Amino acid sequence: MTPLPPGSTIGILGGGQLGRMLSQAAARLGFDVCILDPQENSPAGRVSKGQIVAAYDNPTALDVLGKACDAVTFEFENVPAASVERLQKTGARVAPGALALATAQDRLEEKTFLNRVGAPTVRFLPVDTAEQAREAAQRLGVPSLLKTRREGYDGKGQVWVRSVAGAGRAFRQLGERPAILEAAAPFTRELSVIAARGWDGRTAVYPIGENRHGGGILRSTLAPADIDERLERRARIIARRILKGLDYVGVLGVELFELENGRLLVNEIAPRVHNTGHWTQDGCDCDQFEQHIRAVAGWPLGPTAAHARVEMSNLLGEDVDRWEKLAGLTDVRVHLYGKGEARPGRKMGHVNRILER
Amino acid sequence: MTPLPPGSTIGILGGGQLGRMLSQAAARLGFDVCILDPQENSPAGRVSKGQIVAAYDNPTALDVLGKACDAVTFEFENVPAASVERLQKTGARVAPGALALATAQDRLEEKTFLNRVGAPTVRFLPVDTAEQAREAAQRLGVPSLLKTRREGYDGKGQVWVRSVAGAGRAFRQLGERPAILEAAAPFTRELSVIAARGWDGRTAVYPIGENRHGGGILRSTLAPADIDERLERRARIIARRILKGLDYVGVLGVELFELENGRLLVNEIAPRVHNTGHWTQDGCDCDQFEQHIRAVAGWPLGPTAAHARVEMSNLLGEDVDRWEKLAGLTDVRVHLYGKGEARPGRKMGHVNRILER
Repeated sequence: MTPLPPGSTIGILGGGQLGRMLSQAAARLGFDVCILDPQENSPAGRVSKGQIVAAYDNPTALDVLGKACDAVTFEFENVPAASVERLQKTGARVAPGALALATAQDRLEEKTFLNRVGAPTVRFLPVDTAEQAREAAQRLGVPSLLKTRREGYDGKGQVWVRSVAGAGRAFRQLGERPAILEAAAPFTRELSVIAARGWDGRTAVYPIGENRHGGGILRSTLAPADIDERLERRARIIARRILKGLDYVGVLGVELFELENGRLLVNEIAPRVHNTGHWTQDGCDCDQFEQHIRAVAGWPLGPTAAHARVEMSNLLGEDVDRWEKLAGLTDVRVHLYGKGEARPGRKMGHVNRILER
Repeated sequence: MTPLPPGSTIGILGGGQLGRMLSQAAARLGFDVCILDPQENSPAGRVSKGQIVAAYDNPTALDVLGKACDAVTFEFENVPAASVERLQKTGARVAPGALALATAQDRLEEKTFLNRVGAPTVRFLPVDTAEQAREAAQRLGVPSLLKTRREGYDGKGQVWVRSVAGAGRAFRQLGERPAILEAAAPFTRELSVIAARGWDGRTAVYPIGENRHGGGILRSTLAPADIDERLERRARIIARRILKGLDYVGVLGVELFELENGRLLVNEIAPRVHNTGHWTQDGCDCDQFEQHIRAVAGWPLGPTAAHARVEMSNLLGEDVDRWEKLAGLTDVRVHLYGKGEARPGRKMGHVNRILER
């Protein structure tokens, strides 16, 4: 795949903060960017050459986007397969590909795939009926976690099963949608790996981050995490297996559980730039956003070494009202997304605190 | 001056690469940006929320810009005084102010000001006639440099006077415009200081850079430069005197000559972000573009320490055709401006090479 020359146009499905930071990285490399998002005046649209205001599955919009762009990528994984196909027919490079998106859209497909490529996960069973929910709870033990196979993020679309008898109720609580029951992971830490793969199959992996969640939402990432070499190596191997197994192009986020016995389990993968990779903006020469654009555009991947230890903290909802105090801290870099309304839990920005060099 | 809250709009006169990088920095801090530039689809306009396509002195355009924006700044210094006045009347904060712009627009005013605030320059004399040109050459000696008082950049609008008899010819060569004759500076190095000042009078100064020019155009900057502490301190004092003398708000570039005897002379000042400050993008936590936006918006100034030694090289004209090779160098960060035609000498982009940490 020949690298796209500067002046080419890159399309991004999704106009939120990830699209915004991708667009800025693309512009730094001399690319023009066109956003597709149903919301007018989106955070990404406001820093891009153009925005098409339409639904993600609008065939005309996809045709226009694909024809206007030399490559198209996504800020989220819930892209309909038909949209990807439609884009590919316009002749634009589309990355990551349909396989990666389809795999990440379905928790059952995802975990099945992960185990197949040697990326260990918790034990899991498919659940399509209340009866199956009870059976699965019996086999995996309780507490266990019932999740819808599709959609759901930041802790939505999942419910704890605390007794075998309660499994059916949990299933109904999720709307009787196709689901997956996952054994509880007695993890001591949540880690994540941000990794990239180019069209040529080369990979690049950033140092591992350690994450803290609260209320199902990522609160902070500390990177490079304080982990031993063996674990770091293991995490990198897992990331590379996933990238290769999906014939992936772009940046991918891999969330991991570290168990007490030192084992690593993959919690989930995100076929896109990832909130736990925002620290790279101020900790690495080439951040995850530039890395993704490089991969999609067929450029050589950039360096991934950290030049600083960084603690990234999300600004959720009213957290952003602290901008004035944060702006005055010399060890803190402020990144705001240009979103209007600070609804509770909404990701309004993040800060990267430089801890050491 | 209360700091502008995120979500405010910042206006920038000028849609070239400096406006583009300023716009990107502003967006990172949650600001919207509106560009004013006569050229449609300008490099900065393509990464900004809006662009007004009009001349810089178009009264209606200035009114619209000023009313749409909470603060307005510039990517260049040749802004008509009337435009600044017009903008100020709309109620928008305008920075840097009229004094800084007027001073930097006229080489005679500039050098007179510099000497007044204790920032030494070469000796100079005003030249308004061919006769004055000869007299001045007699007094300052030859070779000396005749420059138009206004306009002229990258070596344009100036000519060497190599004999007293030839001074009149030099004056006619420059179109008999008001000029200034400057004594030659037998400098050993060209240095520059990028410094900032906020509305509250606080200042921040980046480490000194060492510049190489070729054909009157900046080729590269190495920073932090290899200079002794005494010189560094001296350069910083000079920069602070200038900032204070102009009651300056924003980032200012100060070009210096280092003489063999260790003295520093100010060559010229630029009341804006400066090409010799591009290294800060990859060598500092808070680059000159964010620093300028912080100052203009009334935010506290950011840190200026270097975390890497960087060599910035401009990509002029066809240099940009080397993008593919440059993109593959892991110690090189590529910054391209999205300009179409690579005319000879045109600034198409720059690269920052990380030399050491």
